[in-house]
Amino acid sequence: MSRILRVAAAQSGPIQKAESREAVVKRLCALLDQAHADKVNFVVFTELALTTFFPRWYMTEQSEVDQWFEREMPNAATRPLFERAAKYKIGFYLGYAELTEDGHHFNTAIMVDRDGKIVGKYRKVHLPGHSEFDPERAFQHLEKRYFEPGDLGFPVWRTMDGIFGMAICNDRRWPETYRVMGLQGVELVALGYNTPSVNSQKPEEGPEKRLFHHNLSVQAGAYQNATFVIATAKCGDEDGHPLFGGSCIANPDGDIIATANTEDDELVAATIDLDDTKFNKETIFDFKRHRRIEHYGRITAQTGVTLPE
Amino acid sequence: MSRILRVAAAQSGPIQKAESREAVVKRLCALLDQAHADKVNFVVFTELALTTFFPRWYMTEQSEVDQWFEREMPNAATRPLFERAAKYKIGFYLGYAELTEDGHHFNTAIMVDRDGKIVGKYRKVHLPGHSEFDPERAFQHLEKRYFEPGDLGFPVWRTMDGIFGMAICNDRRWPETYRVMGLQGVELVALGYNTPSVNSQKPEEGPEKRLFHHNLSVQAGAYQNATFVIATAKCGDEDGHPLFGGSCIANPDGDIIATANTEDDELVAATIDLDDTKFNKETIFDFKRHRRIEHYGRITAQTGVTLPE
Repeated sequence: MSRILRVAAAQSGPIQKAESREAVVKRLCALLDQAHADKVNFVVFTELALTTFFPRWYMTEQSEVDQWFEREMPNAATRPLFERAAKYKIGFYLGYAELTEDGHHFNTAIMVDRDGKIVGKYRKVHLPGHSEFDPERAFQHLEKRYFEPGDLGFPVWRTMDGIFGMAICNDRRWPETYRVMGLQGVELVALGYNTPSVNSQKPEEGPEKRLFHHNLSVQAGAYQNATFVIATAKCGDEDGHPLFGGSCIANPDGDIIATANTEDDELVAATIDLDDTKFNKETIFDFKRHRRIEHYGRITAQTGVTLPE
Repeated sequence: MSRILRVAAAQSGPIQKAESREAVVKRLCALLDQAHADKVNFVVFTELALTTFFPRWYMTEQSEVDQWFEREMPNAATRPLFERAAKYKIGFYLGYAELTEDGHHFNTAIMVDRDGKIVGKYRKVHLPGHSEFDPERAFQHLEKRYFEPGDLGFPVWRTMDGIFGMAICNDRRWPETYRVMGLQGVELVALGYNTPSVNSQKPEEGPEKRLFHHNLSVQAGAYQNATFVIATAKCGDEDGHPLFGGSCIANPDGDIIATANTEDDELVAATIDLDDTKFNKETIFDFKRHRRIEHYGRITAQTGVTLPE
């Protein structure tokens, strides 16, 4: 059985605060049209793909917060996206803010197969930022205020002829993210992100250094777990706040095989063979032969640093 | 208190099978002389620094194997190195094959402070390669035959005004290595390696790809744990078997700030400030605020892959 797929990062340009979900879905559908024309089978949309990156805005009224969340998926605004993807037989990853029936708030992504069926859900585990207004930052990053940490772990799913996993934005900097999926044989990790071009606590860092950290984290995760990673940005200037682009596809050797050229809506496609994950999984990263869990205890036994005496 | 240090990777060129330890120690002492002239405080020698990379040779007689091992440290051959380093007030990391009094064999490194005192010992945890002769390989890599996996974990030590840790060669590809030390606040990881320029199971891989994997692993480990890493090769052609160079110093942002230009004896020095580890440790990689160990369980609960249903 051939496991060759045509995949794409479907990068989103900026979404201003005033833009409606309906307008955004039209843009995502246009990316699907491009994907269809390019014979793509699987598309990764971004994190919080339906709205502006609202965690930069400090809000104190819960009703104001909740307007950024989806109560069901698909819903009236997103149904056209699901229908078009199913028509084209394109599977996809989509990130959005999830408000559950019992009132929980998560930064969520779903995996949808080529028949339009939701086959998996992931809720962001590594929430960056802070929970209270921070006057010392150049701008706010209130993910810890508006979301609860994900409660589903890092599952993987057999879908689209492979083993697929999901992660969201800051998760990509944490090797634990990839490793937990690697220990389930993951072959493709889909990941969306919204990452400011400016470090709110270190303005001199600069966008090039930040893009380097992004690439480094994606490439190391791909190599060290012998998996493809598709990382998709929302980027550009949202109401005066720049987000960097750099959507990319990394192969199981850690090479970036396709990358975005713009900070706007852009399809970044590549043809991949899921069987290319095998060599490294069976040799240098044959976990069963080489890992020594008796020496890894601190990784799960302690959250923070314990300094030596 | 200033924590600015002048550090160096003291790269070794090839050591042929016929070369004596005494001849090798003379070369290491010459590197110490260079370090002294360059006002270096701390030097990282390589893995198995005293001999050729003997795990490429298939041996069946234990007495033949044992001749590559050291029964005490320092010993007659290495005492000149210890004495010269203490005279210069240069601390160092040194890798060697260790045969214990009770007959155990380890791939070991020690940390020696500026007064010539051994302050720490590490035994390589992630042994690559295989334990029996493998006729399908282009050449042998018998570390699993000649060594037991390290039994000391990944400790760190307060020494030379900082928190120092050690790793050896293949350890650098495993994020668990750095993370266990990161969870103890490590600020500088010293690492020696002997890495063939050719993948014995995939000759078409090529030395550039292999150097890329080396750099990627070192840089990601440094960045994701906000630590300096000094990685030192033994390299060049040993009895017809090429090892790549690429000794480097990475900073806590994951940048390579110094790298080797040759595949021979070479001092690769940089001035570093251990306080440069603080910013990332206190912000994006503030483990206590951001890690979610409740979702990392597989990392310590299972060695190999468990595929999904």
